[in-house]
Amino acid sequence: MIEETCYIPVSTLQSFMVDVFIALGVPPKDAATCSEVLITSDLRGIESHGIGRLKMYFDRIMKGLQKPVTTFEVVHESPTTALVDGHHGMGQVIGVRSMQMAIDKARVYGMGSVAVRNSTHFGIDGYYPLMAVQAGMIGFSVTNARPSIAPTFSVRPMLGTNPIAFGAPTDEDFPFLFDAATSITQRGKIEVLARKGQPVPDGWVIGRDGNFVSDPDAILEGFAKEENALLPLGGAGELLAGYKGYGLATIVEILSASLQSGQFLYGLLGVAEDGSLKPNCIGHFFMAINIEAFVPLAEFKATTGAILRELRAATKAPGQERIYTAGEKEFENEKTVRQQGVPVLPKLQNEIRTIQAALGLTQYHFPF
Amino acid sequence: MIEETCYIPVSTLQSFMVDVFIALGVPPKDAATCSEVLITSDLRGIESHGIGRLKMYFDRIMKGLQKPVTTFEVVHESPTTALVDGHHGMGQVIGVRSMQMAIDKARVYGMGSVAVRNSTHFGIDGYYPLMAVQAGMIGFSVTNARPSIAPTFSVRPMLGTNPIAFGAPTDEDFPFLFDAATSITQRGKIEVLARKGQPVPDGWVIGRDGNFVSDPDAILEGFAKEENALLPLGGAGELLAGYKGYGLATIVEILSASLQSGQFLYGLLGVAEDGSLKPNCIGHFFMAINIEAFVPLAEFKATTGAILRELRAATKAPGQERIYTAGEKEFENEKTVRQQGVPVLPKLQNEIRTIQAALGLTQYHFPF
Repeated sequence: MIEETCYIPVSTLQSFMVDVFIALGVPPKDAATCSEVLITSDLRGIESHGIGRLKMYFDRIMKGLQKPVTTFEVVHESPTTALVDGHHGMGQVIGVRSMQMAIDKARVYGMGSVAVRNSTHFGIDGYYPLMAVQAGMIGFSVTNARPSIAPTFSVRPMLGTNPIAFGAPTDEDFPFLFDAATSITQRGKIEVLARKGQPVPDGWVIGRDGNFVSDPDAILEGFAKEENALLPLGGAGELLAGYKGYGLATIVEILSASLQSGQFLYGLLGVAEDGSLKPNCIGHFFMAINIEAFVPLAEFKATTGAILRELRAATKAPGQERIYTAGEKEFENEKTVRQQGVPVLPKLQNEIRTIQAALGLTQYHFPF
Repeated sequence: MIEETCYIPVSTLQSFMVDVFIALGVPPKDAATCSEVLITSDLRGIESHGIGRLKMYFDRIMKGLQKPVTTFEVVHESPTTALVDGHHGMGQVIGVRSMQMAIDKARVYGMGSVAVRNSTHFGIDGYYPLMAVQAGMIGFSVTNARPSIAPTFSVRPMLGTNPIAFGAPTDEDFPFLFDAATSITQRGKIEVLARKGQPVPDGWVIGRDGNFVSDPDAILEGFAKEENALLPLGGAGELLAGYKGYGLATIVEILSASLQSGQFLYGLLGVAEDGSLKPNCIGHFFMAINIEAFVPLAEFKATTGAILRELRAATKAPGQERIYTAGEKEFENEKTVRQQGVPVLPKLQNEIRTIQAALGLTQYHFPF
């Protein structure tokens, strides 16, 4: 066994994930969708939400906590809105179809939005705004998740990492794409640090006593016992405006749960009253804004591109060499990953071997 | 002269502001709108954006930088969207009419949004979502502003404080209302500290050398010379995710400027090439989501109320007595202010006396 990071070609991993999903009972077209969302995460350098999450989906499908065959039910629909029930199917399939509905509505009416109930983990939040961007629109997507952020002045994980994703087209080779948890960090990054055996920086996670904690493995266990909590963007207390990150996480919870009368906060824990595991009942909210309803698309792209270029050209702080805009690092990372392959750390190699063995996918010969 | 804080009854101040605006040439109905938006800020305890900003509007109208008579031009309209030109009129009048358009569109089509160009400072961002909340909807409002936030790894103020406001109705006596700059703090809070003669906490503002600065008067001067910059929510650098606050501020800039092909960043400085002052050309973006298009309003209110109550009931950090949700402190503040009046600090007393004398509003007899 090679105890080092291996680099696997993008196409190999993508094809492997398709075969994993198909072997788990996901219909081929849906398996391609799931794999596409996951590999996009790896391409963008978000190691936490790509192949690194495959084992989670594998486990959840095996345990019957999410269904490989997605029943996508439109419960209610208006010219610009829809309420969708995902019936615990594949989050990526539910997400892609919902965002597509929002885009289609925005094309006709100027705006479109879709609220989703009974969904499952849908991968990187940023994938969905990218769909809108490709359609020449602004895209917005939020989701709630298992409790992990402590409200300001609390030590208990209550809100999910509740990410906000927003994308807008530009006149450059890549769009503006913001995709961030409303906490300082997120579970996936702790998982990556655990996989790498590195400590968690001060200021990210607190224990029941309100003090910072740093052992990633202990933190992941602590999450499960509700003993550790992520701090909201802005940190602990009010001095550096942690109540803003907390407020943003609450906005995401409201959009994700209240518009579909669904589960929220501890209702998303995925644990039944008898202690057994149950579906998470995650909610999402997707929105598309048709730019052409306001100004010509080319004009919007030029303005947005000019804003981003002016930001990058700002006076640098002493010792700093470069100012980025959201989505820029990820765009550059994609070029690197396409060339050198997706980095697969030893812990992840183990997970892949486990899945491969369980599903009999002997046609893949990984170098680990 | 009494060199202490005076408390002036809400109705007196509101009526005074109406008379100030009328004396400045604002039509009576519009003057009532402007005064209503400003007094709402004082009622909610946001001292920076109420009577404390009256002198700024006075100065700007006197200098011809904003027009007392508002020409509200709908440049372009679709079922769910509109593009409005405010022609440098009164920001509050432009804001209220634009948000009302978004609400009216959402009532018919489920969603509505309005992008605005050539506007002026419109008061607290949170006023506009409150209008949607009163109509049983979700409201969202953003605006750009003069450069003050430094991008991550920069020391130059580039982005405005670019606030995000989001409101949602609940089954409680008051709505959820988030209204926050995407910086840790905002210019108005520095102005309040300057008025009080108190230092600015570390972590809020940096100088050209990247170090924190604390003298509020020097900071306000430094803003004008672009020597000081606000830090984005999340702070300096990347460790505590300051790039997220920076990214959120950029989202607000894109929504406020790109959808109306307007001015942005240094274009909002309000200074012409020859060094003379010119209108700020601020942009806004308003949005309303009709809740009934998704779920019954009562159901939405109950879910949202339940989320907020569960958050407030979370385990408290050691030494903490209470957990708040967004808009709760402001709701409680309103009760206090209605009872004891609006606090008017000595510096503000001077400003009021100046305005009163300039406009001959001798009918008001303030206790200072």
